[in-house]
Amino acid sequence: MNVHAKRPLTPQTVTTGPIEGSRKVYAQPACAPALRVPFREIALTDRNEAPVRVYDASGPYTDPHFTPDLSAGLPPARAWLSARAGLETYQGRAIKPEDNGNVSADGLVPACPATRQPRRAAGAEPVTQYEFARAGIITEEMIYVAHRENLGREAAVAQAAAKVADGESFGAEIPQFVTPEFVRSEIARGRAIIPANVNHPECEPMIIGRNFLVKVNANIGNSAVTSSVAEEVEKMVWSIRWGADTVMDLSTGRNIHNIRDWILRNAPVPIGTVPIYQALEKVNGDATKLDWEVFKDTLIEQAEQGVDYFTIHAGVRLAYVPLTANRTTGIVSRGGSIMARWCLSHHKESFLYERFGDICDIMRKYDVSFSLGDGLRPGSIADANDAAQFGELETLGELTKVAWGKGCQVMIEGPGHVPMHKIKINMEKQLRECGEAPFYTLGPLTTDIAPGYDHITSGIGAAMIGWFGTAMLCYVTPKEHLGLPNRDDVKTGVITYRIAAHAADLAKGHPAAQIRDDALSRARFDFRWEDQFNLGLDPDTARLYHDETLPKEAHKVAHFCSMCGPKFCSMKITQDLRAEVQAMGENEKKALGLTKEQIAAQEGMAKKSAEFMEKGGKLYLDADQADERL
Amino acid sequence: MNVHAKRPLTPQTVTTGPIEGSRKVYAQPACAPALRVPFREIALTDRNEAPVRVYDASGPYTDPHFTPDLSAGLPPARAWLSARAGLETYQGRAIKPEDNGNVSADGLVPACPATRQPRRAAGAEPVTQYEFARAGIITEEMIYVAHRENLGREAAVAQAAAKVADGESFGAEIPQFVTPEFVRSEIARGRAIIPANVNHPECEPMIIGRNFLVKVNANIGNSAVTSSVAEEVEKMVWSIRWGADTVMDLSTGRNIHNIRDWILRNAPVPIGTVPIYQALEKVNGDATKLDWEVFKDTLIEQAEQGVDYFTIHAGVRLAYVPLTANRTTGIVSRGGSIMARWCLSHHKESFLYERFGDICDIMRKYDVSFSLGDGLRPGSIADANDAAQFGELETLGELTKVAWGKGCQVMIEGPGHVPMHKIKINMEKQLRECGEAPFYTLGPLTTDIAPGYDHITSGIGAAMIGWFGTAMLCYVTPKEHLGLPNRDDVKTGVITYRIAAHAADLAKGHPAAQIRDDALSRARFDFRWEDQFNLGLDPDTARLYHDETLPKEAHKVAHFCSMCGPKFCSMKITQDLRAEVQAMGENEKKALGLTKEQIAAQEGMAKKSAEFMEKGGKLYLDADQADERL
Repeated sequence: MNVHAKRPLTPQTVTTGPIEGSRKVYAQPACAPALRVPFREIALTDRNEAPVRVYDASGPYTDPHFTPDLSAGLPPARAWLSARAGLETYQGRAIKPEDNGNVSADGLVPACPATRQPRRAAGAEPVTQYEFARAGIITEEMIYVAHRENLGREAAVAQAAAKVADGESFGAEIPQFVTPEFVRSEIARGRAIIPANVNHPECEPMIIGRNFLVKVNANIGNSAVTSSVAEEVEKMVWSIRWGADTVMDLSTGRNIHNIRDWILRNAPVPIGTVPIYQALEKVNGDATKLDWEVFKDTLIEQAEQGVDYFTIHAGVRLAYVPLTANRTTGIVSRGGSIMARWCLSHHKESFLYERFGDICDIMRKYDVSFSLGDGLRPGSIADANDAAQFGELETLGELTKVAWGKGCQVMIEGPGHVPMHKIKINMEKQLRECGEAPFYTLGPLTTDIAPGYDHITSGIGAAMIGWFGTAMLCYVTPKEHLGLPNRDDVKTGVITYRIAAHAADLAKGHPAAQIRDDALSRARFDFRWEDQFNLGLDPDTARLYHDETLPKEAHKVAHFCSMCGPKFCSMKITQDLRAEVQAMGENEKKALGLTKEQIAAQEGMAKKSAEFMEKGGKLYLDADQADERL
Repeated sequence: MNVHAKRPLTPQTVTTGPIEGSRKVYAQPACAPALRVPFREIALTDRNEAPVRVYDASGPYTDPHFTPDLSAGLPPARAWLSARAGLETYQGRAIKPEDNGNVSADGLVPACPATRQPRRAAGAEPVTQYEFARAGIITEEMIYVAHRENLGREAAVAQAAAKVADGESFGAEIPQFVTPEFVRSEIARGRAIIPANVNHPECEPMIIGRNFLVKVNANIGNSAVTSSVAEEVEKMVWSIRWGADTVMDLSTGRNIHNIRDWILRNAPVPIGTVPIYQALEKVNGDATKLDWEVFKDTLIEQAEQGVDYFTIHAGVRLAYVPLTANRTTGIVSRGGSIMARWCLSHHKESFLYERFGDICDIMRKYDVSFSLGDGLRPGSIADANDAAQFGELETLGELTKVAWGKGCQVMIEGPGHVPMHKIKINMEKQLRECGEAPFYTLGPLTTDIAPGYDHITSGIGAAMIGWFGTAMLCYVTPKEHLGLPNRDDVKTGVITYRIAAHAADLAKGHPAAQIRDDALSRARFDFRWEDQFNLGLDPDTARLYHDETLPKEAHKVAHFCSMCGPKFCSMKITQDLRAEVQAMGENEKKALGLTKEQIAAQEGMAKKSAEFMEKGGKLYLDADQADERL
């Protein structure tokens, strides 16, 4: 373990080193051997147990061979971009004092030295993943994510003889194997996106769509007093270490341009922003002074930096604003309230709505994906699924088609606060209105009565809506509604949402999802404590909790735990029973009261199980050979 | 606030004093003015907001007028028992050394001085709540729980004009008002139970059933080294402080009889146990030596002490044991594995199954409710909903009818580990097989991959199964699978499960559930920080989190929070917008693009809202007058 993971964070440090009990591995798709697709592999102590390969969003920071140099930025994961046709480099927009909030020279955070000329579309040739997909072209990004999503599928298929993966997918069409062609077809249908700005070569491609693994976003933002850029970068690194697939930088105020640059140059995951926040800074916080010019300027500024997706609240139309007046909690989205303020003050239709085509033209040039914002999402159980919310959703559906027509990738943001019985209709309406564009939801929180625990009130809703079809879940931390999350809060939020995402993958019947559950359950039953810890989402916490009552090393191989103690252990009793039952003959089993069918079923299970265990070591390929099938 | 709540626990202390920001109130049903039904009332800082009355399981410990004396035990909440016909007192069973695990005189925890002669049924007259209900008799317990459940219903009905309570109840029949007659009829149908041993007069009656508020159970157990009985009692007091409706004492080993006595004499909630644990102690931990005599002796011992419900694993039949042999995690229930061990070793049908009628006869005499144990519940996602689990459930259905025939109250225990898509079938099968007897589930955990966070993996499943119809949720703490929960873990587990239970109440359309959400949401929108904290399930944690970034007193009345700061606040913007929209004329609204229908709907809402706010102060009756309608 890297000492950094345990040491209090110093301003010039980001957290590095492997997640306890696992190692970083890279695989190279046979059809594109230049790609290095990252995974995390958890080796187990039982030699009959194959190592378990899991999805890994943490980037090079968990690779022991990597030493971060924040000034240099990450090496490009998408080196192929420099050879991609249809792009041009050009002299980018000059940085202006207002980009950093007109901060004084003393207070200015230095720019990140890792600079390069921005790229953009040179003309009408395909630039966005959507355009490539529609043109029938498979990009490196598509191959990369196909391989990445395929994780463990070989094992799942081999296991199929022993156990048929089940699930209720509510119309999702999850394939047995993800091929690059499947990825292309999903993107072409608008059902998935790969947020990947042409100016963010550091990003390891990932895909967001209902027929892929459910993803998690974490939000970060600058502190009032920024002591160092490393601290801001660390927020991103820490989030992805625990499993955030994308990170939204919601910073406001001073130095945001420069800090965003440091984050982007060091981010192996897509970075999302809400450009209206910075635009508002540029007009000194007066929403009524916003206009198309300042917004356009901000879009280009951030697109050149490499932001992968923009939240655009173009669905907050003038007519919807009065619909929120009698709500219990009005408009709770910052972007939504800014635009509502603007619309009402000017008595005009939203300029984001009116200039939506122009926004598309800019975002298309850089392949910045749309995250169509739900500025009118409900902020309380009382306001769930009301006319304002659903009116906006219908407009987002209309805009989705406009964006597709312009060649852009699109996902749709969703609520919010929704009681359990009103969640499914959100998913169904979103799929219908928005042509199955990926849904990206905040929670939803299933009750309002637990401030301090909203990661849980919302984790319940997130698991359910993920099951129903949401492609990415925006995390909520325990500090929601109360204050700014600290390091522990961020970790708790991310782990909670990884639980929700995985529970959804299981329930949808994702072919590879249950492999990890089963490996952990076998470890639990066999009292392989270290394996149980390491297979968990948070090995450190699991180990700590175990050691609180049974700290000795011997207890980590003990065939009991502190709950029952050695005398009473039900697992131990069952292990003995299992051996006895398996040693019985058919007549003995009959004498026990088993029917012929039960005996046959039981023997069939035993046989398949034995076959699977024999094959166990061969189901996974060696990581260093890196020759996984696509 | 009582200082005890903040001070580290000393061995002779239990936690007392009100939950921050609320006060204990008692109400007396008009039809039974001798009863004092406890609630907690949260007064709000806005004089237009009525105080919010919430369910309160915490007993006298949160009453500032009460000083606990553990040796004396609690004053009887069910004083009426002494006058109840059909009961007799008698010379109880003598305490034997093995009752306390043959502990040496030095190690013996003294008996609780608060003793009395045990009561039991004198003959065939009704004794159990089920028998009374079947005979058409409404007991004091039924009046008490009707009043307790009714909490806030008057307000809900008054609000109905402004907002129709919605929900999807999956066949539950939740009434607008709970009457004692409704309680009686539900108990008579076997759809609800009031666990209330005639030897537990300290217990404040509560009801468990699908048509009532969803309840939460917390498990406690003795430590290896018991430093004081107060520490053991404190575990119970601490659990109910945060909302546990019942507590199971799962202690094993030495002193369990005497410690159980201390717990019962000081417990205002029903106490459940698993008698087979103590029976096993009496045969020195050798499951094969268990027999009917030792089990019967244990049942009577605990029934005389006042245990309110017994988990009885009578569904673990001999024939089911081999069905578990090929499971990934075998039998994970302690009781289940003990009985499986016994059955297989003797090659005999379970004596719990064979003597089930005799067990009923004993439990009926004391009105100990059955919690028919799911000894074969799945211990992993892999084993969910398998033949062993469902076979046992069918047997539990058979036994339910036997117990009803003997006059006993019954609930049914349920899983375990179940992925989301397999949860609903559990509920449906349980209702069908067990004639709608209340379901009492552990979780279920929706994935196995998060040791250290199983309160969350299971909180997701608990909220869902509670929505589908489970009447009581057994909590899971963060330490599940890893170690013994400490004080913080217990609190986290209880709060998580209160969230799940409340989310379920909301989704079922419980008429009173949303009152608290709405009050909290209004407080949030109005920046009434203190109200927001106090209306939450855990005011201390909410306040702490808020103060971490905005500690000053002034910030608790500030119209902004640390997330956005004063400049950017969306709530503030919306409050301004609301005022503007409400000041508009119809023509102006039309100019904004609103249709006639939208304008009419909006004005209608505004009118109803204003009416409700006017009535606000009158919807709740004064607690001291305590004259709530039944």
